[in-house]
Amino acid sequence: MKITKPTLLLDAEKCKTNIQQMAAKARKHNLVFRPHFKTHQSLEIGRWFREAGVQKITVSSVSMADYFSQEWEDITIAFPVNVLEIDTINRLASKIRLNLLVESLESLAFLAEKLTHHVGFFIKIDTGAHRTGIQPNNIKLLEKLASFADTLPNLEWCGFLAHSGHTYSCRDRACVDKIHRESLQLLSGLKNHFKDRYPHIVNSLGDTPACSLCDKFVGVDEIRPGNFVFYDLTQAAIGACETPQIALAMACPVVALHPEREEVIVYGGGVHFSKDRLQTQHHGVIYGRVVEKTANGWGAVLPDVYVKNLSQEHGVVHMSKKYIDQINIGDLLYVLPVHACMTADVMKTYRTIGETDIKMMR
Amino acid sequence: MKITKPTLLLDAEKCKTNIQQMAAKARKHNLVFRPHFKTHQSLEIGRWFREAGVQKITVSSVSMADYFSQEWEDITIAFPVNVLEIDTINRLASKIRLNLLVESLESLAFLAEKLTHHVGFFIKIDTGAHRTGIQPNNIKLLEKLASFADTLPNLEWCGFLAHSGHTYSCRDRACVDKIHRESLQLLSGLKNHFKDRYPHIVNSLGDTPACSLCDKFVGVDEIRPGNFVFYDLTQAAIGACETPQIALAMACPVVALHPEREEVIVYGGGVHFSKDRLQTQHHGVIYGRVVEKTANGWGAVLPDVYVKNLSQEHGVVHMSKKYIDQINIGDLLYVLPVHACMTADVMKTYRTIGETDIKMMR
Repeated sequence: MKITKPTLLLDAEKCKTNIQQMAAKARKHNLVFRPHFKTHQSLEIGRWFREAGVQKITVSSVSMADYFSQEWEDITIAFPVNVLEIDTINRLASKIRLNLLVESLESLAFLAEKLTHHVGFFIKIDTGAHRTGIQPNNIKLLEKLASFADTLPNLEWCGFLAHSGHTYSCRDRACVDKIHRESLQLLSGLKNHFKDRYPHIVNSLGDTPACSLCDKFVGVDEIRPGNFVFYDLTQAAIGACETPQIALAMACPVVALHPEREEVIVYGGGVHFSKDRLQTQHHGVIYGRVVEKTANGWGAVLPDVYVKNLSQEHGVVHMSKKYIDQINIGDLLYVLPVHACMTADVMKTYRTIGETDIKMMR
Repeated sequence: MKITKPTLLLDAEKCKTNIQQMAAKARKHNLVFRPHFKTHQSLEIGRWFREAGVQKITVSSVSMADYFSQEWEDITIAFPVNVLEIDTINRLASKIRLNLLVESLESLAFLAEKLTHHVGFFIKIDTGAHRTGIQPNNIKLLEKLASFADTLPNLEWCGFLAHSGHTYSCRDRACVDKIHRESLQLLSGLKNHFKDRYPHIVNSLGDTPACSLCDKFVGVDEIRPGNFVFYDLTQAAIGACETPQIALAMACPVVALHPEREEVIVYGGGVHFSKDRLQTQHHGVIYGRVVEKTANGWGAVLPDVYVKNLSQEHGVVHMSKKYIDQINIGDLLYVLPVHACMTADVMKTYRTIGETDIKMMR
């Protein structure tokens, strides 16, 4: 099937290797591996996880839980419960094991009143990312939530859940290690505080940088990384992967050559990549990097060749005259994305190197 | 139909007023109004343009031309021709009047060889945005393209087309006016140079800031604004609209309250808004502003309330305690988007205030 417009290529071998490596790491550390499926949003890719032994998953919306409930029976929605979707939550809870995320008494009270079936819930802890979650020193509120849950037959408190998203601002392993150690310490402290009364509770942690780079998971029972399934340039900048591990590349048709300003214009813009950006040391803000095409996919990143701007359909690629001289209008450039999750979300379909189309949820 | 998750609301009255005002302006200046449909991407909204007298449209991709060819018979694809889509181009050219955009001899030579039906083409001129287009002083190349086209029975040269996208960096009318005057001058000069030999050629210009703000269109025959159909916070920052003209708002469920850091977390993230950002004077980079809800839609922007960050599904809204005290989990916040085109593109459906769903192309 000839590529004629921006097409998101998936190197299935790289992807499966990424999955197997993370699954092996979880086994080694005796952790439940509950991967986050918000990155790929695909039943078919989900099956590759099943082949690696995965039985429980994480998603970021009720809609996504609904989609994956076609094939998965144990799903955590790692997003503060959206009470407006109670009808779907009840429907899902009637057929699968569903875990919700709670960070306030208000939400728990709402669930107490409206739930018609049994669900588990995690208490969201803010380990320092300051996006959502309860401060770990707010023991009073945590105690209240736990005691309240004791009285609720439909609600089972599973433990604490955190996402140390502040690792995304790291640019080396030491930084990720430091944040991860702090998160472990905070979560361990909480579990120790509650474990006599609630011996079954678990700690769930998981961001791709820490799960990729760190070697200590003491006090954690479950990890939930997601992005590692594909990795991307942001993960490479953090140091969480090497660029050859990145399993996605966008094939973009060349539509104009501007050697006078060392630029090539491709068909491939914000509606294909989304608009996440990466601040780099040498090239300022970039939106992608171009890789060498090979017989079976793609190879190394071309030095000093990067997407410097995106508009709705246009990508502006910086490229020296040396490279531009080898390019013709109608050629395809392969571009590694800055943020795989967002790029996959807008594209909705992957084309494997073997030319099979893999669909995502819509 | 109750809103339970992020939903893109469309105020149809505002939208129709925006359409009528731009149509009236085009009539007043004796310009062909060929609106850009990349913003709304909807057959149904397209019909509102038809009611305002529009007969010719602009799109930004072959796919979009294909979609709109269901109801429109004169379409310009204002994007450098993607030669890889020649089969679709030929199919479309067999049934509608299709205009392509050319900025190189290579592309024209390709079309000369592969076209099976008659098309029009514009030569893309770079009036200063430096994204695509031929420099207006490169008369030698323009002459070559025109002469080459003379020999091609399937290709009809229609004139020059420019998009002065550098108006988007303006923050007042004087700046937009200056860029627009320069563009008019460049395009007029080119037309004058060629008009004796090519009396039929036209100049097509059109960005929403200039078409909204400017009052002189001397030398231009056709305008192609797109964003004005909805407007957005970027256009308001440029001065191209007032915020009450903005016809789109995202309804986002509140999922968490963090008064201690003056933040509210909504369900509504990068997968709903896309990730375009707006640099503001007082609040740094923002991703949206919250408006007052009213019985029939929404009212004024709430002062000092704005989306300060987006992740995949989360929106982080800055809001003073005064406002947070009035909000409950499960409420909906209405958020004006930074970039309407990108937000519409990811959402794919509009819900009118009257609760009708309007679909877009997929």
